[in-house]
Parts: sequence; structure tokens; C-alpha cells
Amino acid sequence: MKFEVTILGNASATPVYNRNPTAQLLNCNERFYLIDCGEGTQQQLIKYGFKAAKIDYIFISHLHGDHFFGLVGLLSSLHLNGRIKPLHIFGPPALKEILELQFLHSDTHLRYPINYYATNATKAEVIFKNNDIEVETIILNHRIPCTGFKFTEKKRLRKLVVDKLEKDAVPIAYYPMLKRSVNVDLPNGQQIKYLDYTTDSAKPKTYCYCSDTMYDERYFDQISNADTLYHEATFLHEMLERAIETHHTTAKQAAEIATKVKAKKLLIGHFSSRYKTLEALLEEAKSGFEHTQLAAEGKTFEI
Amino acid sequence: MKFEVTILGNASATPVYNRNPTAQLLNCNERFYLIDCGEGTQQQLIKYGFKAAKIDYIFISHLHGDHFFGLVGLLSSLHLNGRIKPLHIFGPPALKEILELQFLHSDTHLRYPINYYATNATKAEVIFKNNDIEVETIILNHRIPCTGFKFTEKKRLRKLVVDKLEKDAVPIAYYPMLKRSVNVDLPNGQQIKYLDYTTDSAKPKTYCYCSDTMYDERYFDQISNADTLYHEATFLHEMLERAIETHHTTAKQAAEIATKVKAKKLLIGHFSSRYKTLEALLEEAKSGFEHTQLAAEGKTFEI
Repeated sequence: MKFEVTILGNASATPVYNRNPTAQLLNCNERFYLIDCGEGTQQQLIKYGFKAAKIDYIFISHLHGDHFFGLVGLLSSLHLNGRIKPLHIFGPPALKEILELQFLHSDTHLRYPINYYATNATKAEVIFKNNDIEVETIILNHRIPCTGFKFTEKKRLRKLVVDKLEKDAVPIAYYPMLKRSVNVDLPNGQQIKYLDYTTDSAKPKTYCYCSDTMYDERYFDQISNADTLYHEATFLHEMLERAIETHHTTAKQAAEIATKVKAKKLLIGHFSSRYKTLEALLEEAKSGFEHTQLAAEGKTFEI
Repeated sequence: MKFEVTILGNASATPVYNRNPTAQLLNCNERFYLIDCGEGTQQQLIKYGFKAAKIDYIFISHLHGDHFFGLVGLLSSLHLNGRIKPLHIFGPPALKEILELQFLHSDTHLRYPINYYATNATKAEVIFKNNDIEVETIILNHRIPCTGFKFTEKKRLRKLVVDKLEKDAVPIAYYPMLKRSVNVDLPNGQQIKYLDYTTDSAKPKTYCYCSDTMYDERYFDQISNADTLYHEATFLHEMLERAIETHHTTAKQAAEIATKVKAKKLLIGHFSSRYKTLEALLEEAKSGFEHTQLAAEGKTFEI
């Protein structure tokens, strides 16, 4: 099953040096989830060849403009391009009012329904589940209410040991039960044990997205053992004071967090406009956590 | 005096094929006026090497998203980049509420004051004057209240005929009066006539910006004799029915308008996403009005 994330923007606050504000596109089993939506996200989707129409779920971490100013434009374009299927938006409570005020004054009557789900930035909770994925909020520590998102693959069904099933002539009709860890009782009193004919599926992978936050151990439990941890790293550590003042993280801290929570991979992003190039940020993080990569725009990472 | 306009976006409704929603930057005597501000305008300013900080006046024609969704991001970036000098925004009354709601929820307290001036889409009026320019609204006919803008250079002072002034030993102290069309009465009863020593300055140029409108003769008087007429030309004339339905203009109609109002030059823009290339639109307009050019992104036109 595909489980990968494409970076659409990695700038913080203001767009600069061809870096755009935060947005990421998560592809889980060919269903598309947009995470944050800074200004220009729809242009970035076009640039990298993605169809915005395929997005059914949008998650907004908080109401700083660099994380949602592109949303109203994206929603308008979906309308103008003929969307009729529902769209689900998870984000801070005021998001609905902000969007609807703009639709009101542009006399826009969306052809498709939007289902708004208000997130609660004080209490982590599972906010979405389908056959592929479960999404939980992560309580971050920023200047305004802000949640990250933890995307966990659904546990897959057990894998059939087909050779053995065929050798023992187990009827195909029983396969679905065995995959679901159910033993099959036969009329003759025998039992076909699922453990004999299946193996466990791969451990579900997790993607943890920490958009804007200062270093705060209270959310570390939630992101522990992430297969891929995306963590903001707005500044180099020499700017620690500024990072604390603005409730952001340094590249060194991001690496420290990845180490503490035993992440398998770390992606860093949300880079301050003061950095024309990003090598120093990558270097700083890598010296604390080797498996670090830059959340480079246009790049796709397997979770 | 410099009087020129740079196109930052020429797409209608949705961004496509690397075309961005409407925005234009007018430079009049090195003062900068932004006309409309679709999503991505701040990125376009960066791309073409303009400093957003230099813009002091912003004119928004109407509240369809492709004309103003980039505004809140631009204003936020000016704040984050340290602007303190006032900014003047002219646009529909609801614009203030829309912007302030977003500043409220992002806990943004702008360091610089914004002076809002609500435009009236039912009555043309002069909304701005300074030493360089005068701006008047143009009443357009669109689906929601919409004004264009007519930018008229201020009449320059008369030009001194310096050779003659020196030959007749006219004191330099009188020059400013002569330039202002004032005759100078000398103590000896003689009079120095400004007409003898000055020539008329060039006729003030006008730039008429018609953002979104259907063909409607009622605004033709206002745009008559424009030195440069920017007129939307969303569709080819074969789409006339659709143009009428959506209150837009065809390329053929834009040319007809330019001819009727005796414009010197016509710029066409606001192209529908159905056109991957723009040659056919240019050709159609040129066959009706020869001095037509495409409002190509990144291109600067002298008025």
C-alpha cells in the first residue's frame, strides 16, 4: 500500500527564494490528504502534477496565514472546476467562519458540501478513521492554538500462506476469515487455525506532522516511534532565543526530539526566510540525528 | 516621468498553465500602486524582482477570489518584514471585515496602519489624488459589485523656454510662476507673459483598468481616449453566450470597445483556463483593433 508524503511548501511566515508556505500532500493507498495549505498551494499542486480534485480530506494545523491562506482559493477552484463530491476539512473552529465570509461576499455557492470538523487544541483525540488510516491530533505548543497530526496506517489483514493452503486443500471460501484472525470450525469437528495458514502483516506505519511548535516534552509520547517524523526546524540553534520567543524549534532541537522519540526518519521544514540556502540547517540536524532529510519542495518521501 | 504597468497575473478564476490570477503593479514616478491581488501575488512580486514594501496604495476591483485572495498574505508578509508606514487600500466595503477576521484569529497585530477606503460600485468618483496621479472608479457590469480604475497623470507644469528666458534676462525667481501659467507683473508696469516663455506640457496620460465586466456602453465615456486600455477578454467570441452568462467580455468585444472609445493601445487579459495558449485570443482582438497586446505575466508596458 502506498503511504507517502509530497512537500508542496517548506517556508515559514513569508514566501522567499522560491520557497512557498507550508503544505503537504499525503497519499495513502491512492487517497489524498492535504496537510496545511499556505498561499499558492493550488499553484504548487499544478506545478508538481497533482490533481486537486482527488483531495477529499484537508487538515489545517492552526490559523497563522502561512498554513491556511491558500485554502479559500483551492476550495473556490474546486467549485469552479465542477466538484460535487463532499470535502472534509479538519481545523480550528474559526476556519469555517473565515471561509464562509469570503464565499458570502463573492456570492459563491459551492456546488459541493464541505463538512467542517473543529479541532480541539487542548486535548489529543482521534479525529478521523477510514479503511486505510487513522488520524489523531498532536497538541503542540505555539503562540496560538495549534495541533499537529499523527497519521497511522490501519493494521492490514494477515497474509495468507498460499502454498500451504493449497497443499492442504483448504477451500478458498475460508481465506477471508483466516486473514481476519478467525479460526474456522469444520462440520466434522476439525478446526482450521488461522495461525497455521497466515503470517502477521507488516506493522502499521505512522507519519507525525509537527507544524509549528516550540520544544515541549508533553507531545513526545504521542509521536514516539514515528516511522517518519516531520518536525518544523525554523531556525539554526544559534537563534535559540528567537525560537523560544516565537514558539518555534531549532534544527538541533528537532534532531534531539527525533532521537528521544526514536523516530526512524526525520524530515525538517518550515525554514525561516533568513536562510537563503538550507545546507546549514540540514547539517545541524544530521549531526544530532543521522536519518534527517530536508522537506524539499516537490520531493516525495515514503513513510 | 515613469508611468508603466507590470502584469503579475492574467488568469481568470483559477490558476492554470503557469498563469496566475489577476494582479498588476503600476509604477507612476517611482510610486507603486497594486491593482488587484489574486492568490500568489506576493510570490509573483518576488519572481519579477519587485519589493512589496514599496507599494503604498492597493486597489481591489471586486470580491471574486481571483482578484483578492492574495491580499491577506501580502499584508501579513509586509507586517512580518517590519513595515511601519501606512498602507492605503481601496476596495469593496466588506474587504475590511474579511481581512480583520483573519488577523483576529491569527492573533496578528499589524505594526503599520491600514487606511481602508470603501469604493461605491454604483457611482463613478475620484477616490484618490496625489502630486502624480488621480484615480477614479469605473462602474463595470459584473455578477457582483465591481469597479475598474482610471489612473490619470496629473497635468505637469508648463515647460520653460530657457534660451529665450536667458536671452531676455528674465530673473530665475519668476520661473516657478511662469511654469504655473501665471503672468508676472513687474514694478515698472511691464508684464512677463507666461505664454511667451513657456510651452504646454505633454497631455496627461490615462490608464484604464477594466477587470471583470460584460460589454456595457455605460462605462465607455469614462474610458474614452485612454492611452492604454486594459480590458478583460476572458473568452473567444465563439463563447459569446458563456461570456454574457458569466458577465465577461470576448476578445472581439474588447477590440470593439477599444475602437469605440478611441484607445491608443489595448491590453487584453483575464484569460479563461480553457485556453492553454493565448495566440487565438490575441489574433481575434488584433483583427478588430490593431494595437492590441497580451497582458503577459512579467511584462511591463509603458502607458
